[in-house]
Amino acid sequence: MELKRPGHERMFQWVQMCRIDLERPGLGNNTADVERLKRGLSQALQGDEVDVPWRIWKDLPSVLRRCDFSVTALVFRHSDHWRVMDVLPDSPPKPKYALGVDLGTTTFVCFLLDPGTGATVAEKTVANPQIETGPDILTRIHYAGTGDGLDHLRQMARDGINRAVDSLCMETGIAASDIVVAAVAGNTTMTHFFLGLDPSNIRREPYIPVVNRPGWIPCRDLGLNLHPESFAYVFPNVGSYFGGDLISGILASGMHRSPDICFLVDVGTNAEVVLGNSEWLLACAGAAGPALEGGVAKMGMLAGDGAIEHVRIDPDTLEAVPSVIGGTKPVGICGSGLIDLVAELFSKNIIDQRGKIRALDHPRIVETDSGRAYVVAPGETTGHGGDVLVSQVDLDILLRSKAAMYTILTTITEEVGITFRDIRRFYVSGTFGTYIDPKMAIRIGMIPDLPLTTYVPLGNSSALGAKAFLLNRNRLDEVMEIAGKVTYLELNVNQRFMTLFSAAKFIPHTDPSLFPSVKLEHRGG
Amino acid sequence: MELKRPGHERMFQWVQMCRIDLERPGLGNNTADVERLKRGLSQALQGDEVDVPWRIWKDLPSVLRRCDFSVTALVFRHSDHWRVMDVLPDSPPKPKYALGVDLGTTTFVCFLLDPGTGATVAEKTVANPQIETGPDILTRIHYAGTGDGLDHLRQMARDGINRAVDSLCMETGIAASDIVVAAVAGNTTMTHFFLGLDPSNIRREPYIPVVNRPGWIPCRDLGLNLHPESFAYVFPNVGSYFGGDLISGILASGMHRSPDICFLVDVGTNAEVVLGNSEWLLACAGAAGPALEGGVAKMGMLAGDGAIEHVRIDPDTLEAVPSVIGGTKPVGICGSGLIDLVAELFSKNIIDQRGKIRALDHPRIVETDSGRAYVVAPGETTGHGGDVLVSQVDLDILLRSKAAMYTILTTITEEVGITFRDIRRFYVSGTFGTYIDPKMAIRIGMIPDLPLTTYVPLGNSSALGAKAFLLNRNRLDEVMEIAGKVTYLELNVNQRFMTLFSAAKFIPHTDPSLFPSVKLEHRGG
Repeated sequence: MELKRPGHERMFQWVQMCRIDLERPGLGNNTADVERLKRGLSQALQGDEVDVPWRIWKDLPSVLRRCDFSVTALVFRHSDHWRVMDVLPDSPPKPKYALGVDLGTTTFVCFLLDPGTGATVAEKTVANPQIETGPDILTRIHYAGTGDGLDHLRQMARDGINRAVDSLCMETGIAASDIVVAAVAGNTTMTHFFLGLDPSNIRREPYIPVVNRPGWIPCRDLGLNLHPESFAYVFPNVGSYFGGDLISGILASGMHRSPDICFLVDVGTNAEVVLGNSEWLLACAGAAGPALEGGVAKMGMLAGDGAIEHVRIDPDTLEAVPSVIGGTKPVGICGSGLIDLVAELFSKNIIDQRGKIRALDHPRIVETDSGRAYVVAPGETTGHGGDVLVSQVDLDILLRSKAAMYTILTTITEEVGITFRDIRRFYVSGTFGTYIDPKMAIRIGMIPDLPLTTYVPLGNSSALGAKAFLLNRNRLDEVMEIAGKVTYLELNVNQRFMTLFSAAKFIPHTDPSLFPSVKLEHRGG
Repeated sequence: MELKRPGHERMFQWVQMCRIDLERPGLGNNTADVERLKRGLSQALQGDEVDVPWRIWKDLPSVLRRCDFSVTALVFRHSDHWRVMDVLPDSPPKPKYALGVDLGTTTFVCFLLDPGTGATVAEKTVANPQIETGPDILTRIHYAGTGDGLDHLRQMARDGINRAVDSLCMETGIAASDIVVAAVAGNTTMTHFFLGLDPSNIRREPYIPVVNRPGWIPCRDLGLNLHPESFAYVFPNVGSYFGGDLISGILASGMHRSPDICFLVDVGTNAEVVLGNSEWLLACAGAAGPALEGGVAKMGMLAGDGAIEHVRIDPDTLEAVPSVIGGTKPVGICGSGLIDLVAELFSKNIIDQRGKIRALDHPRIVETDSGRAYVVAPGETTGHGGDVLVSQVDLDILLRSKAAMYTILTTITEEVGITFRDIRRFYVSGTFGTYIDPKMAIRIGMIPDLPLTTYVPLGNSSALGAKAFLLNRNRLDEVMEIAGKVTYLELNVNQRFMTLFSAAKFIPHTDPSLFPSVKLEHRGG
């Protein structure tokens, strides 16, 4: 039998296409079709075991005979064996694709990969349709407990992905049936919704998820309209508060293989923090996010067109010079813009160390119904014609968020008996990580005063991890290793935490020796 | 954790009920529900791997909490691990049942087993609904190739089994969802119909089935209305002409474990013959059956109420004294009756050694449109009022059948270089085996003249093998061993075969030294 072995670079793919010439049957060679295929494939796949699921049997006799027993088999690596997905006549096979999904609370990021080249062929971000039942996850958990709520949430997650896939296919001309493998990473609750599992125990003491390691599930059962024999890998979670999106993020960062100690910070609704290296991984999470994600400040918004992403304040006029995403007129301000703004307001002496806006007689300082505010962009320059301003309340919230972040980082570092100086790389993931200027975040005392080269923006680390997984099946072992290694540290909001927190609410901190570079900057400013 | 281990006698069952007290979750013990169950079960099952399929996940949290983590899990042994079928509150579990199916061309024999006691709880024989599309398998193979024929045949097989199950459940009060495992044994073509597989290559050179080893298939996929998570084992076939019913028959006979050489003969449409022991198994088949199964003789019928199963002929009156199944008036004659009749006709000198009815002047010898005939039961004694008679044509067919049988036995024995005297046990399966009197079969020269104790009627060996399989999962290895060991001998109808066949058409044979006991009997008669 002549074997056309797949090239070496394909050996670690989840799905392979094997072109094989099977022995033709004869009176002295009357093995059945299924067993003939199995044997031929096993030989082509270095003796690995091959499973031919019974849905494949029906069409096999005619396919084999139509092309005189020279076929292309699509095989999927399932645990320790190969599973036949399809047997095709021996025509030049079309490329096959992989689907990655970052199953976020707010958005789904879906992308198609070409595992042959490793390229992302197309990407689509869609709003999570579940938002219709509630913007935040707690509302949805409540909704899941009412009537058909859970099933509805499952359907919405499924439909959202299917619609994104439709649109990706439309855009690229790829057939959904040519998408042959998928990986889905989401937080524990989103993963539960996606699988149709009761999330109520996740947020109720003692915080028990239904499942921690969902693994491979047939796309058919999940209702995903991909290749009918395809499987989707659902990333494991470590517990209720540490989901598959973070496992995927760790995978993307590579910190689990690093001899040096690294930080990974993902700011969403919560700030999620992982500290560790190839030996150990410690994780914790805390409410530090909303202001940074734009969810709380009155003028806050998610990074997107019209959002002020960066701000400088003219030292002479004390007027803000905003940089707006998309180059349009500003309509709001996102997390990175807020951080810049606070840093600039402080360095220009418009706010004091506690973040209070000084009673300056200046057109940009105004009194509103909800207290004093600073006008970042006056109405005549904005997209909606109203002022974009930041109130004292907004600033207070931001400072609490930044203090929470710094305190969480301090606490987890102290927990393992190291100092910030032991950190070699600090990965910042998410939209926040993409837009934030670490220098500014240091200036307000949100993140430690480490050399700027320590900070590495990761982008959507959950999606990146899913991509890494889909391109190389060796990553499965790493995922399981990460899931087995992560220790979750329950943040204990005790006296010590509150003391640290209070000190961290100052700009940059009550102990300026912690921020030597900021001191210089401030003096110089 | 307190473990209630299943008793030792259950250790080899396919499905076990494990009652386990799982550790209660707590803040320091927050394993997810699925992994908690998995771990608890694995400990209860001596460390075996346990798979919790995702369909089980949905209801798990509420079941676990409803009974405070003391549950009964139903687990099925799938290859090298246990697969959870169900998790039930820890109430006294109801017994679970196994379904065996002998998937015959003419009838389906379906029976329920209690694997705890090994008892057959109920049995139901139903006509194969496929008969509607053709009584013989070749007509059905043709029908399978037309339009939706194949799918229709698959549905009829499925519906036939489902109806039999319904009726078994009705009769016993057992719920279909308490039937948790199944085994199906049929010939290669029937197995293909049942699985919805194209049978056309089975009867077309070089005779290639679609599959030889179907193995375990989810009942849900097969459309069998049993426990939703149950699997059915479909017996393997060795090739087109040696099906799972025979593998199952060998299993039932135990000949594959015997140090002595044994014969297994199954007479259906074909005579199927296996010769061998624990070392080797040689099989062949030939057209020897119809007359014996009652399909050809004009008055022939299947063994059943009204069939003459045994006959003696009064040496003085030369009148037949029939024994009728069910004690009713006779309406026809079945295979064993025909054999008795020929033996008696010959011993009373009514037919000669070639089986020709002598031109005796006797009221029981009549001339009909189709030649001379012997009246077994005159009209006034029969169920339908007409004579039950056996014509010369019927006798000729029977003698050809018995000659074919003897020739096949001779040929296969010669093939391995042994003689009939080396045979220690001769298993006769099927209805034929149940009713036939070996002494009579020897007298007409159909089977070798071995000590009568050599002959062992097996009954429905295909059903018996399925039962043995369902009661003990160690039998799976034996089934695979049998399937791997059987060599199929293609009968070569050459000059040698025809010479043997011609000699065997005589009663008992042209060479009477082959039948020493018959010689005595005949002289004595």
